[in-house]
Amino acid sequence: MTLTSERPFRYETLQQSGKARRGTFHTPHGPVQTPAFMPVGTQGTVKGLEIGLVRETGAEMILGNTYHLSLRPGEQIVRELGGLHEFSGWHGPILTDSGGFQIFSLAQMAKINEEGAIFRSHIDGSQISLSPERSIEIQEALGSDVAMVLDHVVALPNEEKVIREACDRSIRWAARCQQAATRADQAQFAIVQGGLDEKLRVYCAEELGKLEFPGYAIGGLSVGEPPPEMYRILDATCPVLPADRPRYLMGVGRPEDLLEGIRRGVDLFDCVMPTRNGRNALAFTDEGTLRLRNAKYQTDKRPISPASPERVRQHSRGYIRHLFQAKEMLGPMLLTLQNLAYYQQLMAGARQAIEEDRFEAFYEQKMNGWRNGDE
Amino acid sequence: MTLTSERPFRYETLQQSGKARRGTFHTPHGPVQTPAFMPVGTQGTVKGLEIGLVRETGAEMILGNTYHLSLRPGEQIVRELGGLHEFSGWHGPILTDSGGFQIFSLAQMAKINEEGAIFRSHIDGSQISLSPERSIEIQEALGSDVAMVLDHVVALPNEEKVIREACDRSIRWAARCQQAATRADQAQFAIVQGGLDEKLRVYCAEELGKLEFPGYAIGGLSVGEPPPEMYRILDATCPVLPADRPRYLMGVGRPEDLLEGIRRGVDLFDCVMPTRNGRNALAFTDEGTLRLRNAKYQTDKRPISPASPERVRQHSRGYIRHLFQAKEMLGPMLLTLQNLAYYQQLMAGARQAIEEDRFEAFYEQKMNGWRNGDE
Ligand SMILES: [Zn+2]
Ligand SMILES: [Zn+2]
Repeated sequence: MTLTSERPFRYETLQQSGKARRGTFHTPHGPVQTPAFMPVGTQGTVKGLEIGLVRETGAEMILGNTYHLSLRPGEQIVRELGGLHEFSGWHGPILTDSGGFQIFSLAQMAKINEEGAIFRSHIDGSQISLSPERSIEIQEALGSDVAMVLDHVVALPNEEKVIREACDRSIRWAARCQQAATRADQAQFAIVQGGLDEKLRVYCAEELGKLEFPGYAIGGLSVGEPPPEMYRILDATCPVLPADRPRYLMGVGRPEDLLEGIRRGVDLFDCVMPTRNGRNALAFTDEGTLRLRNAKYQTDKRPISPASPERVRQHSRGYIRHLFQAKEMLGPMLLTLQNLAYYQQLMAGARQAIEEDRFEAFYEQKMNGWRNGDE
Repeated sequence: MTLTSERPFRYETLQQSGKARRGTFHTPHGPVQTPAFMPVGTQGTVKGLEIGLVRETGAEMILGNTYHLSLRPGEQIVRELGGLHEFSGWHGPILTDSGGFQIFSLAQMAKINEEGAIFRSHIDGSQISLSPERSIEIQEALGSDVAMVLDHVVALPNEEKVIREACDRSIRWAARCQQAATRADQAQFAIVQGGLDEKLRVYCAEELGKLEFPGYAIGGLSVGEPPPEMYRILDATCPVLPADRPRYLMGVGRPEDLLEGIRRGVDLFDCVMPTRNGRNALAFTDEGTLRLRNAKYQTDKRPISPASPERVRQHSRGYIRHLFQAKEMLGPMLLTLQNLAYYQQLMAGARQAIEEDRFEAFYEQKMNGWRNGDE
């Protein structure tokens, strides 16, 4: 069963500014205005933020992790509890990853062959196997709107042969995922691999393009390579992706990476950076990052930023510093809220700039502001 | 300077039902409808709950800890940041304790003489001294609406002589606190001590009554004695306290203790029980307590309670169990919200029952419901 022509997953381009795209991605749980940033809810919760407050940030779509949820509580438990939307209380669109990246980064003693991967759980060491079909089975049990195909992620740098073989295998696995699909209310996105080799990326994008997926992701980036290398790969890959499908840059990243992605035609992003850094006392603002544990904030009466959401803006930097010094949960909670709201404001600003065909000016203005931060 | 006749701290009795009192306690930061439960914000934050959500629970007054705040960030930092109201973002009434109970329970190597206490910080071991005058100085810098006098708390059971001397000292210290007051916008509450000795309690209450404080607390209870002992002391003490002043039972406690206090004429309560237990996966409901880590909740689709606040009720018990299993912050956050909302609902129910002169029926109904819990 192929889902590519399913109307629930229609992508419309509304406007362009250079290569930056302003669009709407329709899903069974509602539309997503793009470019969009998806907060990461690894274990069925965006760490540190009540789900109503996630909505307050302006987020429209969130991400859940197949690997984590299949280990705990287990996808059957999630299904029994009504699926990932009911489970998490997020009734908007949800994307689940395939588990491929977690096998690469978290699982112990992974063995990967053509059939799939065998590895040990990072929680209890139990042996687990994950194939393209099994990844889709889990994601269908979770009931996300968008399922990612299982891909074979390899470390970079690596031998050309290793990267090419992983790329070819990822294409074959994508086709197997497509064959395994049984839910019409779930779209699959393919993942372009190919390391830092532009020709391999173009080849992979073209091969996956023939399979007519309803969306395309660019994977295997932001794994330690210098940012200009990533931008070079985006320059090569985006033009080869079908213009009428959403483009998702996986696991990226810093605010500047988001703008670099948008100006090359990327529509969707996710990253743990705003949440993980927030828990570690780093705040993102238009004036760069603030390290709230810094002693200079001890008696600073100013809010994090005049643009912070009201729940954050009502507090002084001095108070938030105190919360981190005193190891109070509210410190991580408030900076998670700050950072997710900041990322959503940035995306909203980008969308408006594209609508008004002034994205490059918006990009320059943000890049200049970010030069003044604490690091 | 004596504050007893200050109009900002007027207490009105609106209604009685048996000995249970329905009143209003007026403060410079607004009125408090009593009986009332004050959530504990030890370090300038109610652990695990954004301050807007604390308001959502219906709380009208919160408590801050003088001992903790004077050590970190230090009361001068709080004052520079605008005082405890601005610091914490709580613009309603705030009560601060005196530090006496923390010297008793947390401080290391406390030495107490007539002048005050000398002890070591539980944070960095530095030497600190706290006298009645210093306690008031700190609480005035914090700027709470109600300051508690410094009292001498002793362990129970103890020799009669020790308890009597601590009681007499507490009376002398209360008078010194009163003399030290300089802020007309801060009321002081005296603290009745006297262990489990009814005569000593009555003596202490009468002596403190002569000093005409704007409010009276009953201290040194719920420190390990059987609950009926506490009720016996309340039976003896409450009738001796001035009827036109609020009565505050310090650090108590379980929902049943609150109702036992109310039916003996207590108006104000505080306790870490709802917040601390919430962080440890225990939920309070009309049907008793739920231990959410229990395996029987794994696929339980029901909310904690039909009466839970919407942010909690939208989630299944199975989901909340998962959050605790996965060590996600949202578990403690949601059960903190549940429990504080539950305590506020209980107080609102008690207030209404007193207004309708059916407090005993209310008491029986709640006590019966609580028999069905997980423990
Ligand atoms: Zn739903
Ligand atoms: Zn205020």
